[in-house]
Amino acid sequence: MTLWFVGAGVSGYAKLSPDARSAVSGSAVVYADVFTSPVGERDLEELGKISGGRTVRAERWLVEDGSQILADAAKADAALVSYGDPYAATTHAELRARAELAGVRTRTVHAASAPWSALGECGLHHYKAGRTATVMEDPRSAPAPYYVVQQNLSSGSHTVLLLEYDASRGFFLDPAAALRTLLDAEEGQRRGAVTPGTFCVVASRLGSEGQALVSGRAGRLCSEGFGEPPHLIVIPGSLHFTESDALKVLTRCLDEPAPNSSESVSRQMLSKYAPALEKSIEETSKLCRQEGAGAALENARLYVRDAEDFMDRGREEVAVLCIGYAEGLVDGLRLASGLDPAGAGAPKGSE
Amino acid sequence: MTLWFVGAGVSGYAKLSPDARSAVSGSAVVYADVFTSPVGERDLEELGKISGGRTVRAERWLVEDGSQILADAAKADAALVSYGDPYAATTHAELRARAELAGVRTRTVHAASAPWSALGECGLHHYKAGRTATVMEDPRSAPAPYYVVQQNLSSGSHTVLLLEYDASRGFFLDPAAALRTLLDAEEGQRRGAVTPGTFCVVASRLGSEGQALVSGRAGRLCSEGFGEPPHLIVIPGSLHFTESDALKVLTRCLDEPAPNSSESVSRQMLSKYAPALEKSIEETSKLCRQEGAGAALENARLYVRDAEDFMDRGREEVAVLCIGYAEGLVDGLRLASGLDPAGAGAPKGSE
Repeated sequence: MTLWFVGAGVSGYAKLSPDARSAVSGSAVVYADVFTSPVGERDLEELGKISGGRTVRAERWLVEDGSQILADAAKADAALVSYGDPYAATTHAELRARAELAGVRTRTVHAASAPWSALGECGLHHYKAGRTATVMEDPRSAPAPYYVVQQNLSSGSHTVLLLEYDASRGFFLDPAAALRTLLDAEEGQRRGAVTPGTFCVVASRLGSEGQALVSGRAGRLCSEGFGEPPHLIVIPGSLHFTESDALKVLTRCLDEPAPNSSESVSRQMLSKYAPALEKSIEETSKLCRQEGAGAALENARLYVRDAEDFMDRGREEVAVLCIGYAEGLVDGLRLASGLDPAGAGAPKGSE
Repeated sequence: MTLWFVGAGVSGYAKLSPDARSAVSGSAVVYADVFTSPVGERDLEELGKISGGRTVRAERWLVEDGSQILADAAKADAALVSYGDPYAATTHAELRARAELAGVRTRTVHAASAPWSALGECGLHHYKAGRTATVMEDPRSAPAPYYVVQQNLSSGSHTVLLLEYDASRGFFLDPAAALRTLLDAEEGQRRGAVTPGTFCVVASRLGSEGQALVSGRAGRLCSEGFGEPPHLIVIPGSLHFTESDALKVLTRCLDEPAPNSSESVSRQMLSKYAPALEKSIEETSKLCRQEGAGAALENARLYVRDAEDFMDRGREEVAVLCIGYAEGLVDGLRLASGLDPAGAGAPKGSE
C-alpha cells in the first residue's frame, strides 16, 4: 500500500499533472489539505471528480495527528493533496517520515511551490532567495520574520514572507496589516530591515486568473487593498539591473523599484565610532603629556585605519574588534593619566 | 503571439502537466533547453511527439542571445521548455522580461524545482532553505559557494549546492570532486563551514527511476561514486529531530545524521580572547602600580563580562566591540606605564 504526497502546484486542481491525477484516481481515500492554504469549492469539486467522490477534507489536526491517514494507507492506497509542493508544509514532511517508519510506503508528486513561483513571477533570481518566514497577526511574533529579513538583506538575499492563515476561522493575514506589523517591529529593532522606504512586492492569488503583483515602498503598500487571498510578500535584496527591469515590466509598480539593503550592524558601528574616535585621539594628544602617550595614541590611530581596512575586505568582526581596541587604548591612557574616559562612543554609546 | 516559459519539473517530459502539454502542442516552435541540465534523448523524443516534431535544441548561446526566440514568438506562439521551474535559470527570467519589453506576451507554466524537491526528498524543512550556490570545477571559484554555506550555517539554514554543468563538453561536476573542492577551500578559509565532519546529502537523478539520496560526512562522501548525473548536494543546517529522523528513513546514511553549524566569527573571537584577556588583566594588576591603574583594570574586567552578556543576548557585534575595548584599556594602561602591550590576542592575534 502506498501513501501518496501530491503537490497540486499553484494553478488549481484542474491543472494537476498526469502523475498527480493517477495518484488521486488510484487511491481509495484522498485527503485534501484545506489548512495550509485556502482551497476553493471549485477545486474541491474538481478533486472529487478525479477521485470518484473519495475526497475527505483534511483539517490541521487530522494531518498533525496523522493516525487516521496512516491507518487508511496501511489498508489501501491513499493520497494527501496539498497546495504547492507537498513538502512546503513541515507537517507533511513529518507525516511522510512517520509513514516510512511505520512501514507504509510513500511516493511523491512534486509540484510548483508558491515561494519560488512568486520570485519567478517578479523576475527575481531564484538563487538569491534566502530563508523564508511567516508573518503572524500577533505583533509579538514580528521580531522573528523581521530578523529573517534583516539577515537576508545583509547578504543581499531576497525574502519570501508567508502570511498567517487560519482555516478554522477563515482568517488570512492581510498583506497591508503584515507590513504594518513589520514597520512597528522596526520601531523596536531599529536595524533598518523594514522601513517605510523598503521596496516590496505583494503577490496575490498566484497562479490563478486573478493573479496580481503590486510593488512599492512598504510605507505606501501598508495602506493599500489587495483583494482576496492567498497573498505573500517578497522583499527583494540587492537587485541586478535585469531584476529591476523585470520588476518594472512584470509588476504594477506604485513606486520605482529599488534594491533594499540592511547595512550590517558592524558597518553602522564603524561609521559612527571612527570619526568620534579620531577627534578624541586629537584631543587626548593635547591634554596628555604622560610618558608612553605618544606610542599609545599612534597605535590607536593605526587601529582606526586597520578597522576601515578590514571592513573594506569584508572582515567585519575584526574591524569592530580594532575599533573597540583603539577606543580602549585611548581610555586606558586617559585613566592612567587621571583623566576621565573620552567617551567617544564605543562601547557605551552603543546602547 | 505568446512566448511560453514551460517548466518540465523534475520527472521527465513524459510527465508534463496538462498546461505544459497544451503550451507545447499549441506552439509553432518549441525550444528545448538542453544546457541548464542534462536532457535525455528519450525526453527529447517525447517532446518531439507532443510538439508534432517542432522541437529545436536550444543551446546556451541561443537563449542568452535570445533574438531568434523573440523573433519567432513575434510571428507565432513559441515555447521554451526547461528542467525544473522555468525561472530556476537566470537566463530564462531575463529573456522573459526582454520579451515583455519587446511587446511579446509571455505566459508561464510553473513546475517543481530541483532544489526544493531535493530538500523535500531528504525530509528537510523548506522554510529553512538559505541561499543557493553553484560549485564549479575551477577551485578558484570555491570561496563563493563556501561563503554561502558558511552564511547559511551561521543562521542554521540548509544549503542546496548546484554543480557545474557544461552541455557543450558533456561535463557535469562530480559530487565527490565538488566536496573535495570545498574541503580544500576550508583549508584557506578556516571558518569551519565545510570540514570532513560536515554532514551532507548527495541527491542524484532526482525524480527519475534511478533517484538516489546518499548521506554522510563530507570526508567520506568525497571518495564515493554517485553514478550518472544530474546531482546536487544538500548541506543541512540545524536539524529538528523530525528532520534527523527523516534523513535516517529517506536517505541511505553512510554516517549518522548530525546538524551542522558554523560558530559565528564573533563567537569564535570571544571564546579565544576572553580567557587570554582575563589572564593579562591579572598579570598587569601585579606589574603596574600607576595611578589610575585600578580603575582601568576594573573597567576592563567589567567589559569582558559585558561582552559575554551581549553575546548571550545575540548582540554579537557589541560583544566584539566590548572585548576589543577591554583589551585596549589594558594595553593603553601598559603603554602609559612604559610596559609592552600584553598581546592577549586581540586584535593582532586575529590575523
